Amino acid sequence: MTAKLRVGIIGAGRIGKVHAETLAFRLPEADLVAIADPDVAAASTLAAHCGTPKVVRDVAEIFADRMIDAVLICSPTATHAEFVIQAARAGKHVFCEKPIDHSLPKIDRALREVSKFGVKFQVGFNRRFDANFARVRGAVERDQIGMPYLMHIISRDPGPPPMSYIRSSGGIFLDMTIHDFDMARFLIGDEVETVYTAGNVRVDPEIGKAGDLDTALIVLQFKNGVIGTIDNCRQAVYGYDQRVEILGSKGAIATDNCYPNQAILSTKSAIQRDLPLNFFMDRYTQSFVSEIEFFVDAVLHDRPTAVSGNDGRIAVVMALAARKSYDERRTVRLEEVAQPETLLA
Amino acid sequence: MTAKLRVGIIGAGRIGKVHAETLAFRLPEADLVAIADPDVAAASTLAAHCGTPKVVRDVAEIFADRMIDAVLICSPTATHAEFVIQAARAGKHVFCEKPIDHSLPKIDRALREVSKFGVKFQVGFNRRFDANFARVRGAVERDQIGMPYLMHIISRDPGPPPMSYIRSSGGIFLDMTIHDFDMARFLIGDEVETVYTAGNVRVDPEIGKAGDLDTALIVLQFKNGVIGTIDNCRQAVYGYDQRVEILGSKGAIATDNCYPNQAILSTKSAIQRDLPLNFFMDRYTQSFVSEIEFFVDAVLHDRPTAVSGNDGRIAVVMALAARKSYDERRTVRLEEVAQPETLLA
Amino acid sequence: MTAKLRVGIIGAGRIGKVHAETLAFRLPEADLVAIADPDVAAASTLAAHCGTPKVVRDVAEIFADRMIDAVLICSPTATHAEFVIQAARAGKHVFCEKPIDHSLPKIDRALREVSKFGVKFQVGFNRRFDANFARVRGAVERDQIGMPYLMHIISRDPGPPPMSYIRSSGGIFLDMTIHDFDMARFLIGDEVETVYTAGNVRVDPEIGKAGDLDTALIVLQFKNGVIGTIDNCRQAVYGYDQRVEILGSKGAIATDNCYPNQAILSTKSAIQRDLPLNFFMDRYTQSFVSEIEFFVDAVLHDRPTAVSGNDGRIAVVMALAARKSYDERRTVRLEEVAQPETLLA
Amino acid sequence: MTAKLRVGIIGAGRIGKVHAETLAFRLPEADLVAIADPDVAAASTLAAHCGTPKVVRDVAEIFADRMIDAVLICSPTATHAEFVIQAARAGKHVFCEKPIDHSLPKIDRALREVSKFGVKFQVGFNRRFDANFARVRGAVERDQIGMPYLMHIISRDPGPPPMSYIRSSGGIFLDMTIHDFDMARFLIGDEVETVYTAGNVRVDPEIGKAGDLDTALIVLQFKNGVIGTIDNCRQAVYGYDQRVEILGSKGAIATDNCYPNQAILSTKSAIQRDLPLNFFMDRYTQSFVSEIEFFVDAVLHDRPTAVSGNDGRIAVVMALAARKSYDERRTVRLEEVAQPETLLA
Repeated sequence: MTAKLRVGIIGAGRIGKVHAETLAFRLPEADLVAIADPDVAAASTLAAHCGTPKVVRDVAEIFADRMIDAVLICSPTATHAEFVIQAARAGKHVFCEKPIDHSLPKIDRALREVSKFGVKFQVGFNRRFDANFARVRGAVERDQIGMPYLMHIISRDPGPPPMSYIRSSGGIFLDMTIHDFDMARFLIGDEVETVYTAGNVRVDPEIGKAGDLDTALIVLQFKNGVIGTIDNCRQAVYGYDQRVEILGSKGAIATDNCYPNQAILSTKSAIQRDLPLNFFMDRYTQSFVSEIEFFVDAVLHDRPTAVSGNDGRIAVVMALAARKSYDERRTVRLEEVAQPETLLA
Repeated sequence: MTAKLRVGIIGAGRIGKVHAETLAFRLPEADLVAIADPDVAAASTLAAHCGTPKVVRDVAEIFADRMIDAVLICSPTATHAEFVIQAARAGKHVFCEKPIDHSLPKIDRALREVSKFGVKFQVGFNRRFDANFARVRGAVERDQIGMPYLMHIISRDPGPPPMSYIRSSGGIFLDMTIHDFDMARFLIGDEVETVYTAGNVRVDPEIGKAGDLDTALIVLQFKNGVIGTIDNCRQAVYGYDQRVEILGSKGAIATDNCYPNQAILSTKSAIQRDLPLNFFMDRYTQSFVSEIEFFVDAVLHDRPTAVSGNDGRIAVVMALAARKSYDERRTVRLEEVAQPETLLA
Repeated sequence: MTAKLRVGIIGAGRIGKVHAETLAFRLPEADLVAIADPDVAAASTLAAHCGTPKVVRDVAEIFADRMIDAVLICSPTATHAEFVIQAARAGKHVFCEKPIDHSLPKIDRALREVSKFGVKFQVGFNRRFDANFARVRGAVERDQIGMPYLMHIISRDPGPPPMSYIRSSGGIFLDMTIHDFDMARFLIGDEVETVYTAGNVRVDPEIGKAGDLDTALIVLQFKNGVIGTIDNCRQAVYGYDQRVEILGSKGAIATDNCYPNQAILSTKSAIQRDLPLNFFMDRYTQSFVSEIEFFVDAVLHDRPTAVSGNDGRIAVVMALAARKSYDERRTVRLEEVAQPETLLA
Repeated sequence: MTAKLRVGIIGAGRIGKVHAETLAFRLPEADLVAIADPDVAAASTLAAHCGTPKVVRDVAEIFADRMIDAVLICSPTATHAEFVIQAARAGKHVFCEKPIDHSLPKIDRALREVSKFGVKFQVGFNRRFDANFARVRGAVERDQIGMPYLMHIISRDPGPPPMSYIRSSGGIFLDMTIHDFDMARFLIGDEVETVYTAGNVRVDPEIGKAGDLDTALIVLQFKNGVIGTIDNCRQAVYGYDQRVEILGSKGAIATDNCYPNQAILSTKSAIQRDLPLNFFMDRYTQSFVSEIEFFVDAVLHDRPTAVSGNDGRIAVVMALAARKSYDERRTVRLEEVAQPETLLA
């Protein structure tokens, strides 16, 4: 392994840009050496901003470049699995944005190649690196709340994405709840057995016409007996609402949202504060940096990555089970969606 | 109707004492004229404290007393329905503690008598009168949060009651959640269609041996599309945890617990405050006064009572449906438990 | 001493009414046996409400009544000292509203009689009994914050009283700050050496024309080295603002205001809550009950009262010194206002 | 002016390093082209980290370098004034860390040169760029609280610096309070007329032996009638305590501290959260970036800088007056320390 990790980024879109800046400006341990995107202009602009020497249209050039140690796959979801396979075969370590894919067979094929070629693999569940959620996980690990009993995740967007996005998103469970499925497993440190979903179209009837929901409530039952809920809504007009809460035998821990300031304004009509941070990029800024830092460190020092391929796969299994529960109006065991032997954490 | 409402209390136990003090010391519009209890000593002590002129062992003397306008039924649950019937037949207005009964046929029989004799009837769901929950209901009514989408009720006890109490309680849904079932309907102002229950025994295995649960999560689907949860646990070591939260199209409203003081202590280890009010009598002190005040006022001025017989009945229907859902591991429609035509609010 | 304390109330105004209800409805250990007021109609109404058997126009009848053990002096300030003297001479224990008087010689004369006749004496600094401030004092006493360094009291009214009241109030320091002077000594548990006052007329120029201030900031230096401030304003449009904060060697303790509910409303414009309790009667309800309970208990069981005559006197000394500092624009030692030997706590 | 601002940093110590990273990694509009420090090793390490091409021992090389547009003076305070003068004469724009100097004549001489040579000048009062304090200032400017009446600044360090630092610091007022003096003027947007100081040695007697204080309370009277306080302590064991509060005719605004997370832990002993951000570098991270961004932008686009030389000078005047007040135990007018005509904002 070289002293610095030489990284290529695949995809110069919104999240690719975030990771490129992290590599260029925050991580002395990594060098961003190439950016690939069919939109060469976008890739070039980003490369100029980050001082990246190489821009390519064809991702194959990344895989063929022997100077590149690792790739960050930030392209559209439909390309993830194929790029993972190619990267693994080229011996590149892989950081892959979520979800790995919408299809379990495609995910399994990709993860088999990762395993076969022995490259490192990390999925982009950045929220695990958020200071609030890490603090909650820490409370569970350090036994500050004892044995967990009940868990609640509230995860609401400020407003729905464009209908064009909704239509290609794979649905609310694969697009939005997938972060919360991973969060649930991360916080509790155990696997989910059953999923039950209640849902509705409340925010925009167009979302319903597209076959999707915009408001959902999911009940999770874990193997260790914990019961949990995930509350999702495509629109919370007061902003991005991201909170969790766990009750345990020795106490409880709960997080509030993050605010742009701590000022309280008192007037003759109310005591008020400004709205919480409204955009996921602002809310989760530090976590996007930390996940790449963790990945770079894991590759450089041959340590386990933070979010495994299996973590990425199980979140998809949960999303598929949640949809099945919603469609069939009943509790669904994860085993109905995926072979039990493949559900090992 | 006389200028003052002359009231008899049936049952000189814990809640009877609370209501007696309210009538004696807080409500100039009412006179507490008699207390009935098989334990005459308890009744006499309470009467002396409140300046109540009459103490009787046999509740029949209350019903026969033509000077008594209304009764407060604070005796054990098993006696409620019978006393409601006798009171109605004697032309007494009735305030009845929750639950009316554990049996729907008994409840229906009692409510038919109430209806037949045209007496006023109010059920002791005191939490509707709590300043926090009334504020949340007000936000919904005044359209401060728009159309409700999602609702959460957290309702946890500081610790489990004695096993002897658990065994005769009718189970967690009829004993503890019943308040939350009423709260859900009160907050949303609509009827529930289906109930789904996940639950567990986590706090004390003895509770499981008694056929009951100590940790439960209930999903409610309302006719108007709202989805809600109730989170119950028999033990939250930090105290009595009573919170609600509603997300709507125009905003959200949430309540925190009530604390004995607003002091924040900052030390080198943490920023901390004292535990919330720990006992339901302390937490809900004012609501116990207000519900009686409302009842007295409704009778004196021939206005509707605040919590109807049907309100009391539906909460029992929901409790029975919740248990059925837990036992059968599936969503249960309230109509499976009670005839649809009897579910009118 | 009789089993119950027989109390007469002098003055059937706002605060007299509060104390009458406490005695009548909350304190089984006391009997409210007489109410005196030149406005006999007011006294009679109050007596009827409280079931008090005796109403008199002339306070002398109270002092002459051998069935009365103690008096609560709730009449206008100008009468306090004289009534204290008469009560003491008649052997009645005395609870006296604040301030004892505006004149130190009159206060000293009254306290000498109290001492001479050995009756109990308590001043109506009710805030010492408030749960928040008692918690702060407790933190100091229990060494939770170590040695105190800095103290801040914020004490602001929702709005100024009528100009007629202002003109006879003795000025902001004797009328409003006097509570805070007592609070400062109570919280720190030590005596003040010097006072420095900055002040202004900001709320209403009429207050300035009457020779008074409406906005003041007072710096207190205690003998034990603590430095403290009192922040007073006649108008905080968001409501009654009553907070304290102490920094010590081992930590800090601070209190927030009290709110009518704990609900948080989130809308697209702000995260907000309702205004704090706005009226001193609502904010300090429990403390008015507790101070009388303490007094009754002290008399019945021959224990020290909670707020001594000297406590009442020193607060007046501090008010006079604060005015002198404001007028002369310099630090003033309390000894400049009162003989040092009379400043013993 | 070139397209990018070419900046030299003078001083590779703690704050120099912060600004170097800002220029290197955050501000595309600036190039960090040289670092000067007598400790060449420190300068070289920093230059390598930031990709800075030039390292010099002698600051004169910076001033002589025609490729350098602006300098950031991050050297010890005693050198500031001289370097400002040399920079101005060399036509370099100047960003100077606070305080400009401890001596008014030296400050005046430096500012005259700045004025004479027409270079831009900004002082490093970074807190003006903090989101909390900027929000408070915004509330005043946008008239959200009306006419200001009373202002409080609490500014406490987690612990005292080493005695060696204390001895050369110029004392608490020039070292620590100077930030708060600037903050007071910034928040209120008006000039201070008088200063009154109460203070003490409570944290460490060694500080007293060095002729300094560790606990201070300062009363400011502004020309517009606002009265304010600054509360300083060298040790708040719970962490870095940085809060402000302003009461106005239409309301109040107050800020809380910043916390590393928003998690609340509830146990059987307390409801608690983690300590606030403890180190000024963590607490004010963003403000250090923003002040440099502002300076670079002001120079590049010939706009006014954010914190003028006069702002830097007046804070020193206030510090000198605060010490004089403490020594002479009386209110001090700023004019006693500096000529009135030089006090123009």
